[in-house]
Amino acid sequence: MCLIKEKVNQAIAILQELDIDMWLTYVRKTSEIHDPSLFFLTDSTWLTWQTCFILTKEGKKIVIVGRYDAPNIEKQEIYDEIILYDLGIKDGLLNILGRYKPKTIAINYSEDNVAADGLTYGLFLKLRKILEDTPYKDRLVSSEKILSALRGRKTPEEVERIKQAIKISEIGHELLKDSIQLGMTETDLANILKANNERFGVKYAYPPLINVGPETVIGHGDPSSKISVKRGYLVNVDYGVIYGGYASDIQRLTYVLGDNENSVPDEVEKAFNTCKNAITEAASKIRPGVKGCEIDKIAREYIISAGYSEFMHALGHQVGINVHDGGCLIGPRWEKYGQAPELKIEENNIFTLELHVYLQRYGYCSIEEMIRVTENGCIFLTNRQTEPWVVKL
Amino acid sequence: MCLIKEKVNQAIAILQELDIDMWLTYVRKTSEIHDPSLFFLTDSTWLTWQTCFILTKEGKKIVIVGRYDAPNIEKQEIYDEIILYDLGIKDGLLNILGRYKPKTIAINYSEDNVAADGLTYGLFLKLRKILEDTPYKDRLVSSEKILSALRGRKTPEEVERIKQAIKISEIGHELLKDSIQLGMTETDLANILKANNERFGVKYAYPPLINVGPETVIGHGDPSSKISVKRGYLVNVDYGVIYGGYASDIQRLTYVLGDNENSVPDEVEKAFNTCKNAITEAASKIRPGVKGCEIDKIAREYIISAGYSEFMHALGHQVGINVHDGGCLIGPRWEKYGQAPELKIEENNIFTLELHVYLQRYGYCSIEEMIRVTENGCIFLTNRQTEPWVVKL
Repeated sequence: MCLIKEKVNQAIAILQELDIDMWLTYVRKTSEIHDPSLFFLTDSTWLTWQTCFILTKEGKKIVIVGRYDAPNIEKQEIYDEIILYDLGIKDGLLNILGRYKPKTIAINYSEDNVAADGLTYGLFLKLRKILEDTPYKDRLVSSEKILSALRGRKTPEEVERIKQAIKISEIGHELLKDSIQLGMTETDLANILKANNERFGVKYAYPPLINVGPETVIGHGDPSSKISVKRGYLVNVDYGVIYGGYASDIQRLTYVLGDNENSVPDEVEKAFNTCKNAITEAASKIRPGVKGCEIDKIAREYIISAGYSEFMHALGHQVGINVHDGGCLIGPRWEKYGQAPELKIEENNIFTLELHVYLQRYGYCSIEEMIRVTENGCIFLTNRQTEPWVVKL
Repeated sequence: MCLIKEKVNQAIAILQELDIDMWLTYVRKTSEIHDPSLFFLTDSTWLTWQTCFILTKEGKKIVIVGRYDAPNIEKQEIYDEIILYDLGIKDGLLNILGRYKPKTIAINYSEDNVAADGLTYGLFLKLRKILEDTPYKDRLVSSEKILSALRGRKTPEEVERIKQAIKISEIGHELLKDSIQLGMTETDLANILKANNERFGVKYAYPPLINVGPETVIGHGDPSSKISVKRGYLVNVDYGVIYGGYASDIQRLTYVLGDNENSVPDEVEKAFNTCKNAITEAASKIRPGVKGCEIDKIAREYIISAGYSEFMHALGHQVGINVHDGGCLIGPRWEKYGQAPELKIEENNIFTLELHVYLQRYGYCSIEEMIRVTENGCIFLTNRQTEPWVVKL
């Protein structure tokens, strides 16, 4: 079964579970602005006019679409009914609502779950106008619970694709480590990753982050062409790829031995082990039903009680079609994260676990692993890094 | 001057002209959902956390951004002030509003202009919450007029890029025409276009539409692998590319001579000339200040009075960073087009002019040209097709 068919069927099961009568995805000009829900509803990337994708609790699959946009949707053979229009979508939509009389209609907006926030405000106003003389205008609800579940609960096919993406980026990390030379800039290292991507025929899941030594700029910025590898530096690489539409997200740490050094200095070893053990502690408590913030707290307190500064980001985000997938976040209760850390972890969610310590003398010491939530716990999908990789140059 | 700097300065001039105090573009997780306004505000394609881009009528350029997302924006050297946050955007935003006390704050929503409808409904609700105890909650207005002007009024650099895109697709059209062979399917023809794109190092502006003969499926569907070139068929190709971020959109028509034919049949010639003359008539009336629907009407009535069926789409859309650029549409007053056909044409708008006639015996007869609006009229940017191309196979 193709992935979209699998996800559409999963969505209907989720509607039944949540007792939501209808899920309405209302889009237009998808080359201009693209509701992320579309990835699960169609492989047609080019919808010029207003289009409604409608799934009902009873299992009906309906699309209302401008005539010229219809052929690619018809070809998919996923939808039971494809209603074409020439002039406007209103009649078709009111017709369907009149036929199914939904008591709740989920639409794609959410304050905290970006994955469920694909409906633009202008389109929302248009929808309100279409519904203004009907009872349906008061039956709109957020689709955030649908999308948390739909994106979060990976199907076997989705898990396989993510595993492949992980495998490819693990190879990329190893190849990069073996290529490090003194004097290479962060940009040089990024170019090696890029060349490997071309070899593997994959794309980045996100622009890779490369942090070399203590002068590096931490954040989501481009690698620097001014900062280069020296002895006694940490080289931290955050690199993931897309395979079959699904992402990986992994960090690996390499230490370049200093003059007269034969092993990692104690300060680096202690920092690395603290990060690693914080991840182990947090992972040991992951299971379905636990809130994201409870797991985040374990790692955060571990790092702080070991005497390091707090890391100013979430411990773990979900990974899927986007490297930062929506729904439950293993993060702290900070304003910017909204309600996401309060949501509960579910089986077959795939999360990163990442955190860092900054060492003034050596640089950015960070690890990022990926796990899948199982019925009673979690398993690591990555080959965990158990100690810093060491290179002598 | 880089294009983004040029457009940011143009935006400030537009705020002054429209007497709008502030333009606020509020985004998050731009890899998941991407407000089209961002193309003019930053070349950073990866903003993880909530970010506000703020331009004021007085010419202030401000960004409020999560710390880790800041480096790429700092590097651009476009913004006067970059305010970093760790926990949430609220304080920074209220601070800026308190400092400038705007009477009007334009935000990106619009019922009819997709280009100005980048704010999601969930983010809109978040914004309302941030502003709830302030006077600013009642000062929000749509940015549709700003974006109609900003996207519609092409700067010299934008015009140059579009001209290059046109040149490349004109060459692509000619090369394709010279490659047509009997028995080639629509898919085969699309593959030739694709190979030429790779040669030119450009990407499609949209999936090309290829319509061969009378059995073709008209619309935005993929080319068919079942429908192939025969003698006596029309081959219509709708193909545009992206150059330097800007699109072209052109249709060209080829006629494959039938057995014993030495020229285009009268029926095809008459249809082609009707389309061509309808475009000429419409173009002759284009000038700044005329409404889009008035121009559309000229071509529409021309086609109908020549005895053909009405074409069920707009005569002309703008072209820019998207092949269907927002703002004024040269289209009919149909529900699906909303207010766009009521807007006025402006100098330096770039439009397509396209329409078709369907010939039951030969296929889809369509032309699409591109024009730039000048101070007093318009000029064609394409080398107009003056008669169907003819091939003997």
